Amino acid sequence: MDAETLVTDAARAAKRAQPQLARLYRDRKDTVLLAMADALVARADEITAANALDLAAADASGMAAGLRDRLALDPQRVASIAQQLRDAAALPDPVGEVIRGSVLANGLELREVRVPLGVVGMVYEARPNVTVDAAGLALKSGNAVVLRGGSAALHSNTALIAVLRSVLAEHGLPEDLVVGIDEHGREGVDVLMRARGLVDVLIPRGGAGLIRRVVENSLVPVIETGTGNTHVLVDASADLDQAEAIVLNAKTQRIGVCNALETLLVHRGIAEQALPRLGTALVGAGVTLHADPAAREILATAGVESTEAEPADWDTEYLALDLAVAVVEDLDAALEHIREHSTGHTESILTRDLPSQQRFLAEVDSAVVMANASTRFADGGEFGFGAEIGISTQKLHARGPMGLTELTTGKWIVVGQGHVRP
Amino acid sequence: MDAETLVTDAARAAKRAQPQLARLYRDRKDTVLLAMADALVARADEITAANALDLAAADASGMAAGLRDRLALDPQRVASIAQQLRDAAALPDPVGEVIRGSVLANGLELREVRVPLGVVGMVYEARPNVTVDAAGLALKSGNAVVLRGGSAALHSNTALIAVLRSVLAEHGLPEDLVVGIDEHGREGVDVLMRARGLVDVLIPRGGAGLIRRVVENSLVPVIETGTGNTHVLVDASADLDQAEAIVLNAKTQRIGVCNALETLLVHRGIAEQALPRLGTALVGAGVTLHADPAAREILATAGVESTEAEPADWDTEYLALDLAVAVVEDLDAALEHIREHSTGHTESILTRDLPSQQRFLAEVDSAVVMANASTRFADGGEFGFGAEIGISTQKLHARGPMGLTELTTGKWIVVGQGHVRP
Repeated sequence: MDAETLVTDAARAAKRAQPQLARLYRDRKDTVLLAMADALVARADEITAANALDLAAADASGMAAGLRDRLALDPQRVASIAQQLRDAAALPDPVGEVIRGSVLANGLELREVRVPLGVVGMVYEARPNVTVDAAGLALKSGNAVVLRGGSAALHSNTALIAVLRSVLAEHGLPEDLVVGIDEHGREGVDVLMRARGLVDVLIPRGGAGLIRRVVENSLVPVIETGTGNTHVLVDASADLDQAEAIVLNAKTQRIGVCNALETLLVHRGIAEQALPRLGTALVGAGVTLHADPAAREILATAGVESTEAEPADWDTEYLALDLAVAVVEDLDAALEHIREHSTGHTESILTRDLPSQQRFLAEVDSAVVMANASTRFADGGEFGFGAEIGISTQKLHARGPMGLTELTTGKWIVVGQGHVRP
Repeated sequence: MDAETLVTDAARAAKRAQPQLARLYRDRKDTVLLAMADALVARADEITAANALDLAAADASGMAAGLRDRLALDPQRVASIAQQLRDAAALPDPVGEVIRGSVLANGLELREVRVPLGVVGMVYEARPNVTVDAAGLALKSGNAVVLRGGSAALHSNTALIAVLRSVLAEHGLPEDLVVGIDEHGREGVDVLMRARGLVDVLIPRGGAGLIRRVVENSLVPVIETGTGNTHVLVDASADLDQAEAIVLNAKTQRIGVCNALETLLVHRGIAEQALPRLGTALVGAGVTLHADPAAREILATAGVESTEAEPADWDTEYLALDLAVAVVEDLDAALEHIREHSTGHTESILTRDLPSQQRFLAEVDSAVVMANASTRFADGGEFGFGAEIGISTQKLHARGPMGLTELTTGKWIVVGQGHVRP
């Protein structure tokens, strides 16, 4: 059979299986998640053996070291993947929450309750830990999940999914609550994107190219995640000790993530003091500064090296030890720069001036806006969600870090006693 | 210039104008809405004169009576359109609501606040009242709006939008908060659907064809509204007096609306008593019954006329005095029928049996699920939202009746005191 039929059948099987999960209460779901964690640890040999096949193929094809590292599994990593499931089990269950409720003037009882979305499709790149993490969060929130994790992780994902499915079966649940479609390659993604009515939402996680492809081609509703061209504004009144710590943290604490700093804006009124100090610290941490002429001049005077920023730098998510740097005349110019170049993920102002903070927080139209804090805090774990399925940069349904709640929807329940509309 | 450029420019102008509105508090917004209502009434002659041009074209093209009625304006209808704006002014402002908030363990202050979506695109059919209603709800919730209201209402919509824009200008606000693109025809809709990044959400309102076209072609996120293949199940334990009143109300109180009843399911255990009575009442009200063989037999024995249901009847939203009727063996069969044929809008069970009610409310996966009430209550006005922008049949972002709240999104505000991530 062709990929079209197979992937459609897989999605249909997930849709058919999901109501059985939707009816389970938290205790049953947590029991299954904990059993899955145990099974992953018990079958770690099988999983690492499958992973070795993927790694051999990766080595043969000359996969970049960073990607290979994300792909590789050993017993310790399998244990930490299992821990993600235990963590999911420990989270409160969003399903069943009464979001709103009232008795209408005519006596109708009205409640909006939280229910699972249904079938969640995840499209991501070769990171086997995402396979288990996404499955765990989907199951905990009552959703079936269709997983497409990148051909380079085919053997690893297949082994992981086999373990999860066998635990479902052991607990009397349909295996098709977790379905993998890696073997159908890119064509599988195309079919998934057309599976409107079978799949309730598609969540792409990965590079900008993958996300754009899904957003532009999917007939299934999509939650766009991830691209973070993140800005920090050092305002004229900033505390420079704090600014140095925050800018360094935001840029260098972890570089390959969407909440890392990519563009530093410095208010003209503090540029002469701030830039030499920040520039020295950043360059000392191995950062290449892509600076505009005003910033370059100040940096050069202080003996700090920089390269000339190209227009593209203002729109680049480096995910590397590179940073775009510009001097802005005032808050308005900073807001204008952000309006033009931000991807709507996270921006932070460093200031001691209340009106500046108020304007920045009110006027910057991003999922997360901060004052006097590192952009690295824009994270579901840091926000206390306990887990994160991704960071939404769109405005519909979910905005910012997405936890279990964002994998649910509402349902209106109306109870009458023979009510008719006059 | 071509439609591509003109519509893109219009959307861009709306996007540029929107931040000025986003910063206004409720009192300013309400003042503008009330002034718009006054201006519509004051300029009713101008509006009805424009409407007369549309009506003349409609008559020349032989527009159906129902559509012509929706298109027609007179001073009284203009006054009732103005009243919609006064009603919008009277509603609470969702913008600024703190949705969640806490202080994290590290002292970061975290708040999720409600903010406007940005630019809302509305695509609908030739109903001039929707032009003003949509504009009023969008403005009240801080959004700019791009309106495409159907070529048949071009003159009427142009006149209405001119009034709204002139009031915006009189109040020192950008006219481009309300933009009409009717003059660019269907091509304008195509451009709007590609305006990702300029338009934050597209809401199609109208026939199934229009909605499908937008859902399938839009790169801008869409909220799917409206199609209601609505079911009522008369359970074995139903109160027949209530059932007769509710079924009649749901089918005949207003027929051209998405929450009107389209398929009646009758439990085998009550079919012999219920069907003759319900059938007589429905046929007496002018309804044509499209019945399955089991229902036909019972109806025929009681002397109630019916026609044979075709397979397509189970999936038809008649929006007319027609009703599909089937006998179901039990609750499971009813749930299976609904799972297969429902559009996820509204279904209701009529029962006195608590376990049946519980299962129906839990297992039917629709935006609104009811017990012992007419499906006609699935309505934003009835739910107490005060206004309705449409009824969402999708699960992302909004499900069921959408009021002002559904025209907003969240934004995370994080305030630190020099916080860096360890």
